[in-house]
Amino acid sequence: MLIKPGPLLAQINSPADLRQLDKTQLLQVCHELRQFIIDNVSVYGGHFGASLGVTELTVALHYAFNTPNDQLVWDVGHQAYGHKILTGRRERFHTNRYYGGISGFPKRKESEYDAFGVGHSSTSISAAVGMAVASDYLGMNDRQHIAVIGDGALTGGMAFEAMNHAGGLSNANLLIVLNDNCMSIDPNVGALKEYLTDITTSQTYNKVRDDVWTLLGKFSKFGRSAREIASKVETSLKSLLLKQSNLFEALNLRYFGPVDGHDIDHLVNVLNDLKKIPGPKILHCVTVKGKGYSLAEKDQTKWHAPGKFDKITGEIHKKVYDTPQPPKYQDVFGHTLLELARQNEKIMGITPAMPSGCSMNIMMRELPDRTFDVGIAEQHAVTFSAGLATQGLIPFCNIYSTFMQRAYDQVIHDVCIQNLPVNFFLDRAGFAGADGPTHHGAYDLAYMRCIPNMIIAAPMNEAELRNLMFTAQLPRQEGAFCIRYPRGQGVMPNWRTPMEEVIVGKGRLVKEGEEVAILTIGHIGNYAVEACAQLAEEELHPAHYDLRFVKPLDEDLLHEVFRKFSKIVTVEDGCLMGGFGSAILEFMAEHGYQASVRRLGIPDRIVEHGEQLELHRECGFDPEGISNAVRVLCEVEGISAQG
Amino acid sequence: MLIKPGPLLAQINSPADLRQLDKTQLLQVCHELRQFIIDNVSVYGGHFGASLGVTELTVALHYAFNTPNDQLVWDVGHQAYGHKILTGRRERFHTNRYYGGISGFPKRKESEYDAFGVGHSSTSISAAVGMAVASDYLGMNDRQHIAVIGDGALTGGMAFEAMNHAGGLSNANLLIVLNDNCMSIDPNVGALKEYLTDITTSQTYNKVRDDVWTLLGKFSKFGRSAREIASKVETSLKSLLLKQSNLFEALNLRYFGPVDGHDIDHLVNVLNDLKKIPGPKILHCVTVKGKGYSLAEKDQTKWHAPGKFDKITGEIHKKVYDTPQPPKYQDVFGHTLLELARQNEKIMGITPAMPSGCSMNIMMRELPDRTFDVGIAEQHAVTFSAGLATQGLIPFCNIYSTFMQRAYDQVIHDVCIQNLPVNFFLDRAGFAGADGPTHHGAYDLAYMRCIPNMIIAAPMNEAELRNLMFTAQLPRQEGAFCIRYPRGQGVMPNWRTPMEEVIVGKGRLVKEGEEVAILTIGHIGNYAVEACAQLAEEELHPAHYDLRFVKPLDEDLLHEVFRKFSKIVTVEDGCLMGGFGSAILEFMAEHGYQASVRRLGIPDRIVEHGEQLELHRECGFDPEGISNAVRVLCEVEGISAQG
Repeated sequence: MLIKPGPLLAQINSPADLRQLDKTQLLQVCHELRQFIIDNVSVYGGHFGASLGVTELTVALHYAFNTPNDQLVWDVGHQAYGHKILTGRRERFHTNRYYGGISGFPKRKESEYDAFGVGHSSTSISAAVGMAVASDYLGMNDRQHIAVIGDGALTGGMAFEAMNHAGGLSNANLLIVLNDNCMSIDPNVGALKEYLTDITTSQTYNKVRDDVWTLLGKFSKFGRSAREIASKVETSLKSLLLKQSNLFEALNLRYFGPVDGHDIDHLVNVLNDLKKIPGPKILHCVTVKGKGYSLAEKDQTKWHAPGKFDKITGEIHKKVYDTPQPPKYQDVFGHTLLELARQNEKIMGITPAMPSGCSMNIMMRELPDRTFDVGIAEQHAVTFSAGLATQGLIPFCNIYSTFMQRAYDQVIHDVCIQNLPVNFFLDRAGFAGADGPTHHGAYDLAYMRCIPNMIIAAPMNEAELRNLMFTAQLPRQEGAFCIRYPRGQGVMPNWRTPMEEVIVGKGRLVKEGEEVAILTIGHIGNYAVEACAQLAEEELHPAHYDLRFVKPLDEDLLHEVFRKFSKIVTVEDGCLMGGFGSAILEFMAEHGYQASVRRLGIPDRIVEHGEQLELHRECGFDPEGISNAVRVLCEVEGISAQG
Repeated sequence: MLIKPGPLLAQINSPADLRQLDKTQLLQVCHELRQFIIDNVSVYGGHFGASLGVTELTVALHYAFNTPNDQLVWDVGHQAYGHKILTGRRERFHTNRYYGGISGFPKRKESEYDAFGVGHSSTSISAAVGMAVASDYLGMNDRQHIAVIGDGALTGGMAFEAMNHAGGLSNANLLIVLNDNCMSIDPNVGALKEYLTDITTSQTYNKVRDDVWTLLGKFSKFGRSAREIASKVETSLKSLLLKQSNLFEALNLRYFGPVDGHDIDHLVNVLNDLKKIPGPKILHCVTVKGKGYSLAEKDQTKWHAPGKFDKITGEIHKKVYDTPQPPKYQDVFGHTLLELARQNEKIMGITPAMPSGCSMNIMMRELPDRTFDVGIAEQHAVTFSAGLATQGLIPFCNIYSTFMQRAYDQVIHDVCIQNLPVNFFLDRAGFAGADGPTHHGAYDLAYMRCIPNMIIAAPMNEAELRNLMFTAQLPRQEGAFCIRYPRGQGVMPNWRTPMEEVIVGKGRLVKEGEEVAILTIGHIGNYAVEACAQLAEEELHPAHYDLRFVKPLDEDLLHEVFRKFSKIVTVEDGCLMGGFGSAILEFMAEHGYQASVRRLGIPDRIVEHGEQLELHRECGFDPEGISNAVRVLCEVEGISAQG
């Protein structure tokens, strides 16, 4: 089912087409664009509220600026659907987030309008500053550089690093558009949010701002040059500005706004004015996430990425099953965390802006004073957890595998060098699926494994996750405990198993066998179970071991394996370079074992988006891929025996 | 030569002793403490200016607060010499930074007064917030939590993440002491620094602050409770405060100051007052780095860590050699960068606050508009570089190996997923030496190797570094290029060799040999040369290959190696888990080679500080360690042949 665009939108194949329209037509464009997004996402799924919230902003930016020569950087990027639709990808938009289709995020190789690839938050200002400095150096003084960043993303420290730099660059043609909707995926938190709300709702403040705009308008009409206008404004309003000195002006960014981010007419005027003002500046736009779809406006977290839905009734489609289904791993985490926290009052929950994403909201609802959403601030989340641990508390810090990359130094320094007992939970480990390469948790086993004082485990099922969580909260004096698990469902419909301690560093035999041993880590081990069933029909009977811990490795078990087997397949849902399979090779080298080893996992290239199984298949570690690896090892031996 | 403390300092074995003194004696304590630091550092070396700058602050903090129950966190920590001397480590202080001696940074296992281990910047607020939240939860409401952070460290985004969180925690007993000396190691940069200077020098502003303090003083005399005082101050000065609303108050941190950080009497009063004010607050102290040693005050970068010197004349001791010595790698980088930048106008230099540390100051002096010190902001440095690369410029971004951990996600996302041609230079790769575990560049090969679209090289000498730099600036469309080299000197006194292109992924045979092949990466290969010379006297003649690239590996060369040799030693100045040696094992597994492999490198534990060679020896990869590995492999074969 291909979605039909409205009549105006149907003619817009690039922003150049948009810029041919009369300003009075933009309201209709916004309407059609919003409708097109609703029609598409309701049928094909994807992120929803964020793009609805910036519909007017998107149209205004492409109308006022000369994209793609002007460089437009969307922070995070899940709000860029309108941008994609206006920049030549309307007819491919139904492939959004599907295997082989367009990406759900801006991506340089997809379009020249995607000035910078994004996915994680808070990078846009740094990138735009780089571009602006380059344009200045290269003498392209007319080129504009715009970073559109949410108030949530502004809590990420990197955004401040960039503003600190930008504030000193008087020649940089940089416009930061602050898309202030009071939301991350969950409601935004922290002092900055309060501050933005204050200045947005302050009557006096708005009065001053209105004066600025009126003045600007007047000068524009008289046709004076931008520099004159800027200078006049500064002179006339210096005292006012000084008195109203704000956070951004403290950083030497000229602050404009707040403006209504849904007033397309006003937005276009404002952006046209700002184009003429040189130097780094910030425009504070107030928007509503989900704007134009009332259910989404009301429950913004639910409608961040609702899945497919009935656009008329708002009913979100859920698959109906005849039998009980396994839960999502994130929910096993969430419910088990609450269960443990009720029993152990030292447990504290920490999440960087993902309470609903990692299901820590379950604990948050019941034990709000022991659950901390610290904003999009992974670095702080980790060191804050370390601080809690110094006082004898037991932090359960949940950070998606891909986001943990943001806090790597803090894990090394503040936790592992100090040998503090902090528990990390890496959700979305392995392929994230439709979110694609920026969200794949591909590297965690490799980047965590090389850090001393670190335990790394991955559960093969829900009961294992619960047991690992139970183990992580038992008293221990030292060391980080890192537990990684994938996005999506486990395998146990009846998952509320009694919990018991797991001995750290102990793996287990899943299935005895002969000739070949399959060594797996984590949930992906279930593929090996499928492969073994498949192979049994071909009279091949590999053994299967679930190592459970990547670090420390179960050396006893591995000695047993390598004494019995000289053909090994390792399987991991992580990068092959330096990961679990490499750990097995290191063990072999250390102990002088010789064996034929085939390592299955994520190859050394960027894997794009798609369903998890599609990606596993592409990389050769779906059940069939595992079976093949076993077959090859057996055949090779056969040939060699004959030769 | 043991340094004698002054008479008062000699009696202070803990802050409890200090607190027995009369306030009038503190000036003398400061004098003696400063003198003791000068005496020690001039003889034994170490960081210098930072500790001199906080002498009064250190004494005042331990005098006013009840350490170690009150939690005192020093950001970065190289300013904590006075703290160490006052907290029971005076008599061990001459061992500071020596192998087996005390650490140059606060360290939890060294003292209960070191509330949090530090080394990298900008972590202190996060840690103290964690502690304050824990104390609040645990009902320890009298406990104070103090983070002392420099204005340089405040440019690190993580500090803002923490302030954003702290501003919302009205129950947190948190005091941030901003040690504003306008310096990182080099002069601090950016908009924030300008802002701090503005409020420090503004007469009006100071007037208001003085009023606050006068008022506070009055109330204290009347013996009212802290809460009443706080409330009164707020009521009386609300309008003033609002009008003077500043950056920190925007984040809901109550701002006090600026105060003279060298006025011990005033500092003690202020800190005693602040103790009584609940909630998160910041005290802005203005200090002079190097205070009390005039040469250090005048050239603060030079005297950050000057080495040993004559305390009377200020002459810095330099070893005198009869023959020309090899240069430091950092200087080869610095001079070669300028040389290349003069030839190739697309080259831009980027450093996060380390222009002198990485010798980019050489380019900065000559080509200031093409050299960017972006502050202590590694994340921004990387993404800013990526932004430059999108516009066709060629970024040379130099970040110490250990600091690159701060920008890991940005390397993955903003550079490698986008496949942008950015050049990274990882100085201080391998053991950093006296700075210890927080500064060792131990993990880079492992954490970089797992990222796709990444070239990783390490030069064995100065000529190789120059050739790699030359190669990195040649036109290429894609991919990050990462070049790592150690702290300290190379091996070529005549290092200004003509530059030539290196073929990416090509290693080289250093020395032919038999029975055993030694595979090395980078400068540590010179140890293998020494080992080979040693072994030749024992009639052992291993071959030696310098792989030069960890990624891509030279597969042709490795096929040759594994066809010829079944005994292999790998040597790297990096962690064994997932590093260079593991890459070799992966190659073997991939191609079905069987060999006995001994991997030498950094073991899976935290290695403390000491001279680089001492640490190499401890870890068994000094020349003797390499020789031993070869001997063991040969003997093993001998025994096996007999058996």
